[in-house]
Amino acid sequence: MNAAVNPTESAATSGVVAQVEALGRAARAASRRMAEAEPGAKNAALHAIAEGIAARRAELNEANSRDLEAGRERGLDAAMLDRLALTDARIDTMIEGCRQVAGLPDPVGTISDMAYQPSGIQVGQMRVPLGVIGIIYESRPNVTIDAAALCLKSGNAAILRGGSESLHSNQALAAIIQAGLEQAGLPREAVQVVPTTDRAAVGALLRMPQYVDVIVPRGGKGLIERVSNESQIPVIKHLDGVCHVYVDGGADADKALAVAVNAKTQRYGTCNTMETLLVHADQAEAFLPRLAAALGEHQVSLRGCARTRAILAESGADIAEATEDDWVAEYLGPILAIRVVDDLDMAIDHINTYGSHHTDSIVTEDYTRARRFLRAVDSSSVMVNASTRFADGFEYGLGAEIGISTDKLHARGPVGLHGLTTLKYVVFGDGHVRG
Amino acid sequence: MNAAVNPTESAATSGVVAQVEALGRAARAASRRMAEAEPGAKNAALHAIAEGIAARRAELNEANSRDLEAGRERGLDAAMLDRLALTDARIDTMIEGCRQVAGLPDPVGTISDMAYQPSGIQVGQMRVPLGVIGIIYESRPNVTIDAAALCLKSGNAAILRGGSESLHSNQALAAIIQAGLEQAGLPREAVQVVPTTDRAAVGALLRMPQYVDVIVPRGGKGLIERVSNESQIPVIKHLDGVCHVYVDGGADADKALAVAVNAKTQRYGTCNTMETLLVHADQAEAFLPRLAAALGEHQVSLRGCARTRAILAESGADIAEATEDDWVAEYLGPILAIRVVDDLDMAIDHINTYGSHHTDSIVTEDYTRARRFLRAVDSSSVMVNASTRFADGFEYGLGAEIGISTDKLHARGPVGLHGLTTLKYVVFGDGHVRG
Repeated sequence: MNAAVNPTESAATSGVVAQVEALGRAARAASRRMAEAEPGAKNAALHAIAEGIAARRAELNEANSRDLEAGRERGLDAAMLDRLALTDARIDTMIEGCRQVAGLPDPVGTISDMAYQPSGIQVGQMRVPLGVIGIIYESRPNVTIDAAALCLKSGNAAILRGGSESLHSNQALAAIIQAGLEQAGLPREAVQVVPTTDRAAVGALLRMPQYVDVIVPRGGKGLIERVSNESQIPVIKHLDGVCHVYVDGGADADKALAVAVNAKTQRYGTCNTMETLLVHADQAEAFLPRLAAALGEHQVSLRGCARTRAILAESGADIAEATEDDWVAEYLGPILAIRVVDDLDMAIDHINTYGSHHTDSIVTEDYTRARRFLRAVDSSSVMVNASTRFADGFEYGLGAEIGISTDKLHARGPVGLHGLTTLKYVVFGDGHVRG
Repeated sequence: MNAAVNPTESAATSGVVAQVEALGRAARAASRRMAEAEPGAKNAALHAIAEGIAARRAELNEANSRDLEAGRERGLDAAMLDRLALTDARIDTMIEGCRQVAGLPDPVGTISDMAYQPSGIQVGQMRVPLGVIGIIYESRPNVTIDAAALCLKSGNAAILRGGSESLHSNQALAAIIQAGLEQAGLPREAVQVVPTTDRAAVGALLRMPQYVDVIVPRGGKGLIERVSNESQIPVIKHLDGVCHVYVDGGADADKALAVAVNAKTQRYGTCNTMETLLVHADQAEAFLPRLAAALGEHQVSLRGCARTRAILAESGADIAEATEDDWVAEYLGPILAIRVVDDLDMAIDHINTYGSHHTDSIVTEDYTRARRFLRAVDSSSVMVNASTRFADGFEYGLGAEIGISTDKLHARGPVGLHGLTTLKYVVFGDGHVRG
């Protein structure tokens, strides 16, 4: 947009920029205090927030009703309205979530590996907050609490920008969070919700490296791509999940069937759902008809390579042909691509070439091939004899997650409290100088 | 540049882009093999490279002479020509460097923290290479060997783009590196030097996220800013070093003097050199005249706040006034800014506000204030009673360093082999599925 063409819009935009910058300055100041906050104070704030949500349930319902009503008027579809709704069950989950995060070990300030060096200095690393985290998400208001709780516990300040549809719900939650912070003697500005639905606010947030240390987008691919492209701040992002199960030669067929069915059907819309199954040629004839029958019960439609189609045709099933597009597809639905491979190398090549480096599992009883798969598959989670659906911060014992990173730098895979911190070097001397 | 305006240049550029993409494809393929390479093979390659440099010293000298001659013809200044020269001492250092890196523990493939989870799966993390690392540097040809050795040892493939002035030297070194890789049974393409001085090659390298996982620029601020702005690939970068020494109330004056003089004068042009000294008001009258005298012997010129100037005026020294510009200046020369502060809070505020979050040291005998400084100063290295000059991969025991990161994400401070790797999750099951 050329400012000269539309001075009114430009003035409005510069107002939003100033507003977001003010949030940034306040967040930076709050982050300094949060970095020094004691675990007890942070946990007290989390419990106060949990109590605040419970005590102000009626207010929350009222604010959420306003969002839902506006959403219906704007013609949001049923799925969007469902995500937007703060049901009693979701409110209970938010309360429980705050209490769980309060119960996690506090990672901030731990010092590790202090070791004396030849010069006589002693060097180690201290775990510290990243600083200010900007979180950009879509219409689920419960993300406001999840994200605030994790940022608070990890000693960061957060600037939250939820979807415009959930503005009233988010404002009501922000009031509860800030009251909880204050009650615990912590700065209110440690968690701020952007108080405008103006889209220019997102652009402004992405252009304040002086105030914001990292951006975490949570939502669909469109949002994540926009944020990644525009951001002048490092992004911890979560892109596609094109996950594989490879059924090795000599695999235990019962385990393979259980893992494959669970990985495909336990939930269709999640990033850790299997999208392509690879099977060793030695196993294919026995395994594929059993798999097709089991997935048939779940109405999963199959697409296969030529060998897969030939094998299934013998048992009377006529499935569609899988093309190159299928190997890279994230269906997020009841569809599975199947390919017969000659050996482990071909399976690894397929996964590294067509996959999204998210989560891949081998089903095998062979020690050497299991070890090789773990080493050679370049994904954020590699598994042996387990469903890809386990790739999740809770299942991994992180206690909570802010997302699953498909980046290689900093945090790879499920991101919990550690992923929201970094390490600085600590040096102890006694007047030491460098020679 | 508009392609329509200059079709010839555009055709040339697209030729360079294709050339760099070919390097990228080859590097990606090589990175798969390097990720699985055994420590013995990688170390054999490093020793073969060391031997190759020793055996082909005459060829290296000849190639370097051509670069130096061309540099003199192009009117490079003495400092540039000095950096470009492969002296016998520098060649010896490269040989020794390869052997040292071979001797470091191999970080790749280590599995840590395997722990059973409530579901019965066992989860931990494996350290793995980042993949393909692009390194963009200026005219020092010894960086070619340093960078290649670290990338090789950490199981990555490297694409190296040195300054155009050093092209012949870098090509000669590349031939030695590739011969060493081949001798050890590793892919030649694990280390490639961009074989053109065309500046478009840098742009092309920064726009291949499909082939390159991280970019490491090494050089002056201009280079690093250009790379950071243009790159579509994550950058591990090293910006300013505005480092502080804070002399606390009750500090041991002899330690403070030793640390301050070393931090300022041991080398002027390095990023971990002190640029501003802060001193507690209680110490200032006794300490500043001693400091001024000691730094006077090194011809360091001083710039001070009003209180500093008043104190030094009493001992007959008339120093320049420090302005806001001085508090953010990276002098890289014999200049020091000095400020008297009222207390620790003011020192911490000054450092966090004006510093570059690189390296800051407190000189103190006070337990509580030392502990507070370590926690509250938001820098990649925080020190007690030690010279800021220690912020260095060798001094920290990393064995080597590819640079000092001023970023918070991934690697903060000196970056050694660990900084060139990442962690993936490893999950073991026995046919486990998610409930």
